Amino acid sequence: MIGVFDSGIGGLTVVKAIRRLLGNPEIIYFGDSARVPYGPKSKDLITKYAIQSTVFLSTKNVELIVVACNTVSAICLDKLKSMFSIPIIGVIDPGVRRALDYTHGRIGVIGTTGTIRSGAYQRAIRGLSATVRIRVKACPLFVPLAEEGFTDNQAVYLIAEHYLASLTEFGMDTLILGCTHYPLLSGIIQKVVGRDVKLVDSAASVAEEVRSLMNGRRKQGDVRIYLSDIPPGFSRAGSMFLGESINNLRKVAVEDYA
Amino acid sequence: MIGVFDSGIGGLTVVKAIRRLLGNPEIIYFGDSARVPYGPKSKDLITKYAIQSTVFLSTKNVELIVVACNTVSAICLDKLKSMFSIPIIGVIDPGVRRALDYTHGRIGVIGTTGTIRSGAYQRAIRGLSATVRIRVKACPLFVPLAEEGFTDNQAVYLIAEHYLASLTEFGMDTLILGCTHYPLLSGIIQKVVGRDVKLVDSAASVAEEVRSLMNGRRKQGDVRIYLSDIPPGFSRAGSMFLGESINNLRKVAVEDYA
Repeated sequence: MIGVFDSGIGGLTVVKAIRRLLGNPEIIYFGDSARVPYGPKSKDLITKYAIQSTVFLSTKNVELIVVACNTVSAICLDKLKSMFSIPIIGVIDPGVRRALDYTHGRIGVIGTTGTIRSGAYQRAIRGLSATVRIRVKACPLFVPLAEEGFTDNQAVYLIAEHYLASLTEFGMDTLILGCTHYPLLSGIIQKVVGRDVKLVDSAASVAEEVRSLMNGRRKQGDVRIYLSDIPPGFSRAGSMFLGESINNLRKVAVEDYA
Repeated sequence: MIGVFDSGIGGLTVVKAIRRLLGNPEIIYFGDSARVPYGPKSKDLITKYAIQSTVFLSTKNVELIVVACNTVSAICLDKLKSMFSIPIIGVIDPGVRRALDYTHGRIGVIGTTGTIRSGAYQRAIRGLSATVRIRVKACPLFVPLAEEGFTDNQAVYLIAEHYLASLTEFGMDTLILGCTHYPLLSGIIQKVVGRDVKLVDSAASVAEEVRSLMNGRRKQGDVRIYLSDIPPGFSRAGSMFLGESINNLRKVAVEDYA
């Protein structure tokens, strides 16, 4: 079984991509909705929360864990890999490899404050290419805008223009959407950066990596969703991210897993 | 000593008002920055977090606790009062009394999703006036906008216009800012609703209630701030809310208090 976790429900877009590519394998998803968002929080706290999420999923006999959260992938993926024997995949390397396939030399990266501040995207790109040029920008309002369904109006356009101005000036040809929420705003983002810039989200390439690691083994089944809080109106928002209806939803006290 | 808590750092505006009115009394503040925001979360979870915050402050020998968080005040103030013997003040009743002093008959209320959904403002107003007319609106994006320093630009104006349209149509004469973050946006809000609408924030009337309960007893001193997470850049943002520099800051594992 595949385990996937994220700070909230954005990671369900990664679950959707995995289920599409692998023919609906059984997936256990944990979303830390009691403590979302991670982006503005400290490195130590994000690490503590990520360890609790990983411990929880490892009690469910998963054979592979996908860290769907860019902030966690950026800040403590190596720490998680060193602590647990289960294979763990983050979302940064797959996104970077995809961007390098497309780029002609200038990559832009947007993400949460935590992701951008960590420098993880910059290091991952530099690790694979010594010559590509990089510019990054934290866009902290994109998460609440996407969660509130503000995905296509003039206010969002102005905020996107504000955030993306330095990247547009830079002349990027490829833009990595370094947060699972951002694909919901891709219409507006594409409008602001222009049609010639290729937008890259990591969900599809994460799914490819999962397929190669699963070696053909996969059992069809449901998505079982665990959340640390079940907020009012979750099912509607969750189905939007997942692309299918949510049948199997439970609450878990994740702070008890350490 | 006076204890004050909030889901994050917005409640420091209430601390500022208390210190102004009472001549800088010693205050212990707890901000649950590890789990902010409370607004979109479930009632059960908000109640659990509020109990932990109250237990933490009660270990500090405070003689009075101010719940500076509107969402907590709206959802579980009575529960806290029934569980603890220390006097506990919320921010809703003081704000409502102030609004009733000003209104000629039509009050608007804005707040987080949790605050508005709880119906607490509507009940508090109705408890004091059978005739005043009320209209409410949740404005969930105002908190992240204020926290990101988006307090005065065209995008915020458009979002405020979107949220406040139904209240303006309603013809309110008084608008309660039912969230400690909203005073940071009062310039824009006033522009959208027009100069004739009186904006009410509860900080000043909460301070008056604290003064009347403290019976003249008060020891001058510092503000001691405890946070469940110390995010990068906190000191700058915190001083902005508090109106003085922050000298006494510690981290606390609030989930251990139950």
